[in-house]
Amino acid sequence: MIPVKGYAAQSPTTNLAPWDFERREVGPHDVQFDILFCGVCHSDLHQIKNDWFPGIFPMVPGHEIVGRVVKVGDHVKNFKVGDLAGTGCLVDSCRVCENCKQDLEQYCLNGSSQTYNGLEQDHKTPTYGGYSNSIVVNEDFVLHISDKLDLAATAPLLCAGITTYSPLRHWKVGKGHKLAVLGLGGLGHMGVKFGVAFGAEVTVLSTSPAKEADAKALGAHHFVVTSDPKQIEAAKNSFDFILDTVSAPHDFNMYLSLLRTNGVHICVGVPPEPASVQAFSLLGGRKSLAGSGIGGIAETQEMLDFCAEHGIVSDIEMIDIKEIDTAYARMEKGDVRYRFVIDIATL
Amino acid sequence: MIPVKGYAAQSPTTNLAPWDFERREVGPHDVQFDILFCGVCHSDLHQIKNDWFPGIFPMVPGHEIVGRVVKVGDHVKNFKVGDLAGTGCLVDSCRVCENCKQDLEQYCLNGSSQTYNGLEQDHKTPTYGGYSNSIVVNEDFVLHISDKLDLAATAPLLCAGITTYSPLRHWKVGKGHKLAVLGLGGLGHMGVKFGVAFGAEVTVLSTSPAKEADAKALGAHHFVVTSDPKQIEAAKNSFDFILDTVSAPHDFNMYLSLLRTNGVHICVGVPPEPASVQAFSLLGGRKSLAGSGIGGIAETQEMLDFCAEHGIVSDIEMIDIKEIDTAYARMEKGDVRYRFVIDIATL
Repeated sequence: MIPVKGYAAQSPTTNLAPWDFERREVGPHDVQFDILFCGVCHSDLHQIKNDWFPGIFPMVPGHEIVGRVVKVGDHVKNFKVGDLAGTGCLVDSCRVCENCKQDLEQYCLNGSSQTYNGLEQDHKTPTYGGYSNSIVVNEDFVLHISDKLDLAATAPLLCAGITTYSPLRHWKVGKGHKLAVLGLGGLGHMGVKFGVAFGAEVTVLSTSPAKEADAKALGAHHFVVTSDPKQIEAAKNSFDFILDTVSAPHDFNMYLSLLRTNGVHICVGVPPEPASVQAFSLLGGRKSLAGSGIGGIAETQEMLDFCAEHGIVSDIEMIDIKEIDTAYARMEKGDVRYRFVIDIATL
Repeated sequence: MIPVKGYAAQSPTTNLAPWDFERREVGPHDVQFDILFCGVCHSDLHQIKNDWFPGIFPMVPGHEIVGRVVKVGDHVKNFKVGDLAGTGCLVDSCRVCENCKQDLEQYCLNGSSQTYNGLEQDHKTPTYGGYSNSIVVNEDFVLHISDKLDLAATAPLLCAGITTYSPLRHWKVGKGHKLAVLGLGGLGHMGVKFGVAFGAEVTVLSTSPAKEADAKALGAHHFVVTSDPKQIEAAKNSFDFILDTVSAPHDFNMYLSLLRTNGVHICVGVPPEPASVQAFSLLGGRKSLAGSGIGGIAETQEMLDFCAEHGIVSDIEMIDIKEIDTAYARMEKGDVRYRFVIDIATL
């Protein structure tokens, strides 16, 4: 077994603290890479607090992981020692269901293996995430990371990036479309970057007027303050798509009214309460409320390659892992521009 | 003005009763047709009871209207005296908005004119529906009805027919798709007929085991009793589309779990309470909750022509207009196979 240093929550009521644990030996199809940077996703906090479902403890969060390969298994062909490597939200899946066979491992019908707070495909061994200094992952779930990009700023692409890239690609958002990005946080700011890169006319919808300058700097063409009834009225029936990155409660019927006929409201955030949707909000213009979860491995690689080609990374604030509690507190207030990334050298 | 006999509700608390009123003279672009049959839609009852919004009284319901042309305006080219004619839920729209220009009058951005409980495009004159013996409608909102079909059984095509035909066409439901039709009533039984005609593998989802024989007779390939947890469990992840015709409260998250990845749950009914939708119900398989309302005029004609070609009509129970209260009471209990149609000769 390989000794690893990490940060773990021992229970949903304790803060993260140093924890030493072991990872499996590198198997014939495994890649081991030393973790250099790990992004801090809002879902890390939700999971260590059991907000969504009872977690597996001790829990080592982190699923925006980049680093450098230190060992590969005998049968690994696509990675060699010294390569940059990354892993996102998944470390394995069943490989045989109809979704896995279509590169949709994120929707594996037999249950994919989440990078942390999950189980390996033996359905027994817990997985531990990227708030740690090394990881062993099956080669099929390891991504190539370009050395053209700032490595720390690449980490959030593994979750915030693919979570916004995938739905925009699936619904073919691009030139001629009016895209609203709801919420300008870790996901939202990536949604703006991708929407602009794909040629859409992008509007940021936000409760915070203070974010307008940032939105424009990120490339957004328009900004709507959602707490201003006049601005909302003017935005009615105007968007082809809303990319909804908000995890706080919000009024879905109001946002659906901003969509044009045939418009699609795509949820990628997970609010604590169910959405309450009036039938007429959908029937009145053949509208859809849809959801999308991360992306498959092939599409994640496609996204990373697209980012390398177009110079797209996340806007980050680097932190020492010992500052994680402060970072969580700031993240809960939306006070981060736009993703915290842990410098794992501080571990 | 043209004197007309009808049945009206004078207020939301009074029953329907005979009421004489007047319709406009036949203008240069108008068609007048004597009404022979009018279908009874559940929305007639919702509207006279103010279930959805305050109505315009006196209210003459009815938007599944067929009859024979008795007079045409000087500029009318497509209809002549003696033709069969029909009108559905719309009698006019603005004609100039982007939706009207794309044959989507049902989503007119300036407000279409509903056949009853609405206003003409002058935004002043109330409209009166098909529980009456004659109607005057702008030629662009009059449909051609084939004489190959049973005329009375054609009436419900004007609402129940197009409301189910349009979404199945929009989402291109057909061969290779598994379609579930939720609810076997006026809308649902038409959904089954169209789904089968389009080549889909059709399953009826119903709370009533007693409807299985009917469902199969209508062409459905499978039947699932939704109150049986075993049958629901077996149906998980199995449908590409659910056509949801139910206007009573129901558990959307349970139905979304029956969809395959990328599945679409299409609402055409209007339950009294908003749908409550968990984020994970959508994110967990890139699913959509969508809505669709009736259809445009061109598509309604396309549907009627399709029905004439394929011998599709509604299954009906003919009633005397004096039986309307009994019919409403039975309809509320789901006790109709599958649409009441008023013989207007009984007026």
